[in-house]
Amino acid sequence: EEKELRQRFMAPPVTGLRELRRRRRELRSRMELLIMETQAEVCRALTALDPGASFAVDSWERKCVLQDGDVFEKAGVNVSVVSGLLSEEAARQMRSRGKSLKAKDGKLPFCAMGVSSVIHPKNPHVPTMHFNYRYFEIEEADGTKQWWFGGGTDLTPTYLNEEDAVHFHKTLKEACDKHDPKLYPKYKKWCDDYFYIKHRGERRGIGGIFFDDMDSPSKEEVFQFVKSCAKAVVPCYIPIVKKHCHDSFTPEEKLWQQLRRGRYVEFNLVYDRGTKFGLLTPGSRIESILMSLPLTARWEYMHTPPESSKEAEILEVLRNPKDWVH
Amino acid sequence: EEKELRQRFMAPPVTGLRELRRRRRELRSRMELLIMETQAEVCRALTALDPGASFAVDSWERKCVLQDGDVFEKAGVNVSVVSGLLSEEAARQMRSRGKSLKAKDGKLPFCAMGVSSVIHPKNPHVPTMHFNYRYFEIEEADGTKQWWFGGGTDLTPTYLNEEDAVHFHKTLKEACDKHDPKLYPKYKKWCDDYFYIKHRGERRGIGGIFFDDMDSPSKEEVFQFVKSCAKAVVPCYIPIVKKHCHDSFTPEEKLWQQLRRGRYVEFNLVYDRGTKFGLLTPGSRIESILMSLPLTARWEYMHTPPESSKEAEILEVLRNPKDWVH
Repeated sequence: EEKELRQRFMAPPVTGLRELRRRRRELRSRMELLIMETQAEVCRALTALDPGASFAVDSWERKCVLQDGDVFEKAGVNVSVVSGLLSEEAARQMRSRGKSLKAKDGKLPFCAMGVSSVIHPKNPHVPTMHFNYRYFEIEEADGTKQWWFGGGTDLTPTYLNEEDAVHFHKTLKEACDKHDPKLYPKYKKWCDDYFYIKHRGERRGIGGIFFDDMDSPSKEEVFQFVKSCAKAVVPCYIPIVKKHCHDSFTPEEKLWQQLRRGRYVEFNLVYDRGTKFGLLTPGSRIESILMSLPLTARWEYMHTPPESSKEAEILEVLRNPKDWVH
Repeated sequence: EEKELRQRFMAPPVTGLRELRRRRRELRSRMELLIMETQAEVCRALTALDPGASFAVDSWERKCVLQDGDVFEKAGVNVSVVSGLLSEEAARQMRSRGKSLKAKDGKLPFCAMGVSSVIHPKNPHVPTMHFNYRYFEIEEADGTKQWWFGGGTDLTPTYLNEEDAVHFHKTLKEACDKHDPKLYPKYKKWCDDYFYIKHRGERRGIGGIFFDDMDSPSKEEVFQFVKSCAKAVVPCYIPIVKKHCHDSFTPEEKLWQQLRRGRYVEFNLVYDRGTKFGLLTPGSRIESILMSLPLTARWEYMHTPPESSKEAEILEVLRNPKDWVH
């Protein structure tokens, strides 16, 4: 497993290991080794000199971004792992239920990791998808470890396709049901409540699942649940992309997509606490928000689609969330 | 070498491999594997669907930050590797001499990597140090590869210590001289010219070496030169930290340090093109600048140190750079 971890870590998602080995022989790879060695050498020298070495924050991040493709307008998948020390205040803000934590000398060792992604396709008949799975660990003064998982997967279509909505929710429900039949209904509702654009009276999309602060029944069981959810990302979404990415569309449909993208921007900038995960440093907050935004969006004053139009159909569902799976 | 690369990459700079192996068995490590797998799965599915897959940008970054320690107020070492496609305009801006590059369909495959660091100690008798070594590769329409290296190491003391200045410059000169005796004088001058705060008529510090767009005599020779410079970072600086980190200092000396930190901020925010390396995405530019800034700084209106004071002594050197090694 350790070997596998290393292989995956080194291998860019779009490149095979053979190609990678070839590259290793190149000067470029020797330079990569040199910059890594230099970082390690300097960090070792600094921490050796400073007994406050425990104040170190160590983080790595890997991004994969597609832009201006034929199918995707903008798509990114981001992985981030951070460990270090948190202040009591920062630790409290990380838990949505705001549990208080006892710190030693006001500082709490923590570890935060997660994968997050937003995929905005070009074709208005292919929905936008977002997912995010994350894990936190905080060590209290007495050595006890608080830990919790969070995450979710949700769909934002421009037009309603009932079959797709059912497929998406059903795939997520199946992933949840393997662990506890109570999970899907609970996290489906949490998702509808979370992705609510209050000033519009609409949800961002047709939902999915969302959860935070999940710390029971046991670490192992929650991990297995999160694993099932993460493994469901590709099967719940990719078939929908394949089905519609060659659908023809009119300029009016593209315009409606752009107006809906505007709503996506509104939610992300005004309400999203989901970016909270990336917020451990000020810079990564900004980047995390920017990454989730579509390439283009549009706002028109008082745009109201005609009654019984396809545009009114999706609005109805965004205003009154439906149960897609029974 | 590949194995070594992987080991270093996975091992946090402050953690040994044994500790890492122990951690691998923990759930936390299985979650790390899961988020990496999920990223790889989704990226593979997306690039398989979109023939515009070549538009992918793949990047990773690793940060090591010390803050509020006993010796260092703020110290960070950052490694970043990015590959993808650049627009002709963006490619031109990356080279300080502004060479034009021939693109295929307006896009140029590129790879950029580098290590950068700023170390701000607490004690005013320990100088601030900055270094940065980087490599770029751009492929033109006809398949030819343009490549170049850049970098430098420079010192910013609060008070002048001639012995330290000589040690620092001598160590850098020795690293350069192994390759060509013309390099140190040339890059010492480039450093003095680059770190110039025009509105103050002062250099940021007592210099070191600085170079950009270095693409001759050959890739191998430039790499060996950069390697010598990177390997000189610890020996040129760490002995100075060790020598002075327990020096006593007065509140007045701490105040003068804070005023000098203000100048550091001025240079970095107003003049630094060195952050250019991190500028491939908007977010990382911000983070890169923030990382280089000190924890605290101070500005006083019309502060002028008395003649023949220790404060006036360093100012004289910042206004008229000296040759420290003959």
